[in-house]
Parts: sequence; structure tokens; C-alpha cells
Amino acid sequence: MTNRVCDLLDIEHPILQGGMSWVSDAFLAAAVSNAGGLGTIGAGAMPAELLREEIRKARELTTRPFAVNLIMINPEFEKQVQVLLEEKPPVVTLGAVQSTAVIRLLKEQGIKVLPVVAAVAIARRAEEHGADAIIAEGSEAGGHIGETTTMVLTPLVSRAVEVPVIAAGGIANGAALVAAFVLGAEGVQMGTRFVCAEECTVHEAVKEKFRKSGDRATVVTARSIGYPVRTIRNKLAGEYAEWEKKYLAGECTAMEVENLGLGKLREAMREGNVKSGSLMAGQSVALVERVQPAAAIIGEVIAEAEQVAASLPSRLVLSR
Amino acid sequence: MTNRVCDLLDIEHPILQGGMSWVSDAFLAAAVSNAGGLGTIGAGAMPAELLREEIRKARELTTRPFAVNLIMINPEFEKQVQVLLEEKPPVVTLGAVQSTAVIRLLKEQGIKVLPVVAAVAIARRAEEHGADAIIAEGSEAGGHIGETTTMVLTPLVSRAVEVPVIAAGGIANGAALVAAFVLGAEGVQMGTRFVCAEECTVHEAVKEKFRKSGDRATVVTARSIGYPVRTIRNKLAGEYAEWEKKYLAGECTAMEVENLGLGKLREAMREGNVKSGSLMAGQSVALVERVQPAAAIIGEVIAEAEQVAASLPSRLVLSR
Repeated sequence: MTNRVCDLLDIEHPILQGGMSWVSDAFLAAAVSNAGGLGTIGAGAMPAELLREEIRKARELTTRPFAVNLIMINPEFEKQVQVLLEEKPPVVTLGAVQSTAVIRLLKEQGIKVLPVVAAVAIARRAEEHGADAIIAEGSEAGGHIGETTTMVLTPLVSRAVEVPVIAAGGIANGAALVAAFVLGAEGVQMGTRFVCAEECTVHEAVKEKFRKSGDRATVVTARSIGYPVRTIRNKLAGEYAEWEKKYLAGECTAMEVENLGLGKLREAMREGNVKSGSLMAGQSVALVERVQPAAAIIGEVIAEAEQVAASLPSRLVLSR
Repeated sequence: MTNRVCDLLDIEHPILQGGMSWVSDAFLAAAVSNAGGLGTIGAGAMPAELLREEIRKARELTTRPFAVNLIMINPEFEKQVQVLLEEKPPVVTLGAVQSTAVIRLLKEQGIKVLPVVAAVAIARRAEEHGADAIIAEGSEAGGHIGETTTMVLTPLVSRAVEVPVIAAGGIANGAALVAAFVLGAEGVQMGTRFVCAEECTVHEAVKEKFRKSGDRATVVTARSIGYPVRTIRNKLAGEYAEWEKKYLAGECTAMEVENLGLGKLREAMREGNVKSGSLMAGQSVALVERVQPAAAIIGEVIAEAEQVAASLPSRLVLSR
């Protein structure tokens, strides 16, 4: 018995760490990869040369495969792609990228390409364009999101494509991993839980905020301008709501709403401004309880998953 | 091995049919109960005496237990409660009801009371107030919804209360049922799938619309006025968006937005006006493919669940 995600990515456990701008650097990515998962450097709007340094640093810190997450909608994108073609990280995950050309170029360099999608039609198109696997991300995820939840998106994408599906969104423990497999996934991606990895270099105030957040902690902002983003509810989220009202009333532009977020993710994650920064987080933040080494997170998730699966036959009583 | 939901409700399979105003009448409820699930009459804004007739009709059509779903926010509510105290249906599910007094009164008549909740704190309070089980409804559900998805809400509520948890939202097949159990539920509630039961008396155009809907079919309206409702995207949903803009711009009242929906659910469900009516549906509408008798739906979901669970050990390969 084999797992196609492990085989494809040459990893020990089918757990990917989601790429998170200003959060997941080479240090976290290498820790996850060393623990048998797939660590991911979040390129975000990183200058191309800094991205090159991060990739090289990851290579120093681990001999295992790792990924770089690219987001197309940023001015450095083309230069970042150039760096990837030169540095050839083993895997690239693509957020908001629907360019056939980029997928082909990366694949020509032997790079595995995994698009992150939030809708069935886009998953199908990504497969046609050569995606090696699909990361299907439900709306409970943190950061930029779609509208369909993991519970519904996972089975729909799994039946729409032949390549392996990796479920993301709302997954922070072993039970969720098993649920994702039940729904058709062959791997999972977790972002929020890895923010509370010891090796994650975000400000301590962020980890403390994450540990203390409950089920009503997150909120979606910027939905009105067509770019929904899930963050922890704070002063900035309140300001978004006010500016979105103005936007809908025709009193400001979508750009003005967008600009509210300028520099705010860095401010939250690096400087620990949890009140006025952009604290991107998934709903699963309510399930994150403590800070642990990345290896302990992966070990715990796998052990929990095995335990949940083993106890299922005795709990799944469907008839009297 | 027993199932607490089956034992509590005296039913064969731990599948509840969600109460749906203008959709689930005595005829559908009895069909589901006769098939071994728990059918539910959706009382909605039904006049109290009509509700009494529906309960009596259900009793003629089945000897098995069934439920009535009450929604507190309607003018008939107190009279409806009076009818329930007199007619004593075996089970009452409570949407948007947080009244200790009502729960106590119903329980004094031997009625099992199951609140439908969308947040952990409300689940805890409902248990304190004597709830026999909790229906935890994720944001992918149809109609009036909360913000937390089934993937995250189910484990959080399951660990917060001692009584059994029934997962709702996004559940339309056997795989989703197993996923819900993996996440801590001991039963599931399905609404959307039962709209396409043969015994469901909605207009045929509604069933056709449901069968043809995909993953982007639903949309949430009225979020801006604090009462989010999930429906299938149509002309009415577009009008909501326009009026919500006006509301946010201070150009109309919340009441004016709410009034857009007046009579629209009936118009969609009974008259088949799928363009301008309120087509409440969950995201799982994308998983509903055909019209079947209620007994076939329950039989298929149970068989699928058993199959998915049986194949899990061979698919859940977590290490190389």
C-alpha cells in the first residue's frame, strides 16, 4: 500500500505545510521537511533575490524536498519565477495562478507543480495544464479564500480530477486528516497549526493570540471587493468593515479598501501588532492549543489519525 | 455497540432530515421516519392550527418517531409551542431558540429537545438548559446559517458537550457521514439531499434546479444585516446584493432588506419560481444528483458509509 502524495513529493508523511507570506520562511519549511512533511517557503511579495537566499538556506537546513509557494498577484512575480527556474526547488505550490505557461516552464525544470484551488472548474483546468496534484482549499482556510467549504470541495474536486488531491482549510489535527481522506483526499495541507510551531519565526504575540482564539475568532474581510481574506477579528478587521461600507456606497474605490492591508501582514506577523496588523488565520485556529516543535506536530497528527481510524469501527454504529 | 442518537430518538439509523419551512411537511417527514431516519416537519411560520394538522397527519402516516422544527423568530411561535405541548410530537428541533423556558416546558411533556447551534458557547448553554442532543450546523448549510464550517464546528462542539452531537451542513452522502463521525458526531442531519426525495412535495422545478447545481451555485445573502441566509444564486439573490449596498450606504433600513424575502421561500418551493424565489439550499446541493425515494436515500447513504469505512484502512496510508 502506497500513498500517491508521498510518492509524488518524495516525503515520509502526506502532510504539507501551507505557504504563508511573512510567516513560513526557510527555517520553518526545513523543520517541517526534516520531520517528514513538506515544508513550504511562502514567497508572497518577497524580492526575487531574497527568495533565492531563502531557497539556498532551506537547502542548507534540510536534504529533504521542500516547496515554494508563489502568488501570482504581486509585482515581483515574474522575477520570482525566474529565480525558481534557476534554483529549481523540488516543488512549487501556486496560489491564484492560472497561467499554463508558468506551469509548463516550471515542469520543464523538473519541478513538481501543485496549484491551490477553491473551485471544481479551476481544478479541472489546472489538471489539464499539467498540475501534478491539486491542493483543494476550503473557505475555512486563512488568508485569501474561496467560498466552498472543505467538507464539500474535497469530494467534488476528488471526483473531478485523476491526480491526487490534497485537502486544505480547517485541518489542524489527526481527526481532520482522517476526515479529509474519507472525503477523497490523499494528503492534507495545514497552515494555521504550523504558525504555532516552535520553529516558526513569527512574533510570540501571534502565537499567543492563536493559542487563545476560539470558534468565533476569525472574520472574512474584503469580500465586497471580490478578494475575501480570513483573519483574526481585530481593530484592522473593523476598519475594513467601515471602508467596505464606504466602497459599497460609492464613497471610495476598491483600491482604497485593498490599500488598508498594505504592510499590515508584516506588521502583525513580524512585529507582533495583533491589534492593528493583518492576522491571517484559518478557522482551525480554534483547535490550536499550544506551541510545539514541527516534528511534534507532525508526529501528533499522524498518531491521532491512526488512533481515530482504529477506533472508527467501534464508533460508527449506523443501525440498531 | 450502540449509537446514542439512535437510542435517544428511538430510530434505526442516525440520520435526521433537517426541518425546512415550505419544504418538509408531514408527508416527507413520515417517509423519512418510515425509512428508519428521523423525519422533521418544518414549522416555519406555519399557523398553529395547520401545524397541529401536520403533526396529526404524520401520526397517520407513520408509527415511528418524527420531529417538528421550530424557529423562534416568527409571530406564531408562542401558539406553535402551545400546540406542541398539546400534541406532544416525540422530538422538537429548535432553530434560533435560546429560551430555557421553552426547552423546560417541552421536556416536561416528554418531548426530546435538540437545539440547532452554530457556535460552541451556544452549544454549551443549550446543554445546561437541558438539551438532549446538539445539532451543530456548519456554515455550508442552507437557509439561516452561522460562520463556522462543519469541519471545524463538529470537533469543537463534540468536545464542549457531553450529550451526543449531530453534524449538519455539507452532508449529503455516506462519505460525509463517516467524516462527521470521525470529527466526533454520532449522527448527521441532511436537508438539501432530502429536498430531492420523491416524497418531498416541493415544485418539480426546484428538484431540477438542485440536481443541476454545481459547486459555485450557492451564495450567502443578508450577511450585512446580521442574518446570513444561503440560497441558490438567482435574480432574487442579485436583488439582495443591491439592497444590501443601499443598506450599508444608509439608504434603506435592515427591515427593507429583510422584507425582500417576504413570501419568496413559498414562491420558490411551492410555485417553482426558481428565478425570483428564495431557493434556500446548502453547498452540498452540488453533491445531489437525482430524485430518489427517501428510503433509497437513507439506504444509499448507509451503504456508502459502510463501504467508505471499510476501504479506509487501505487508503489511509500515512507513512512510507
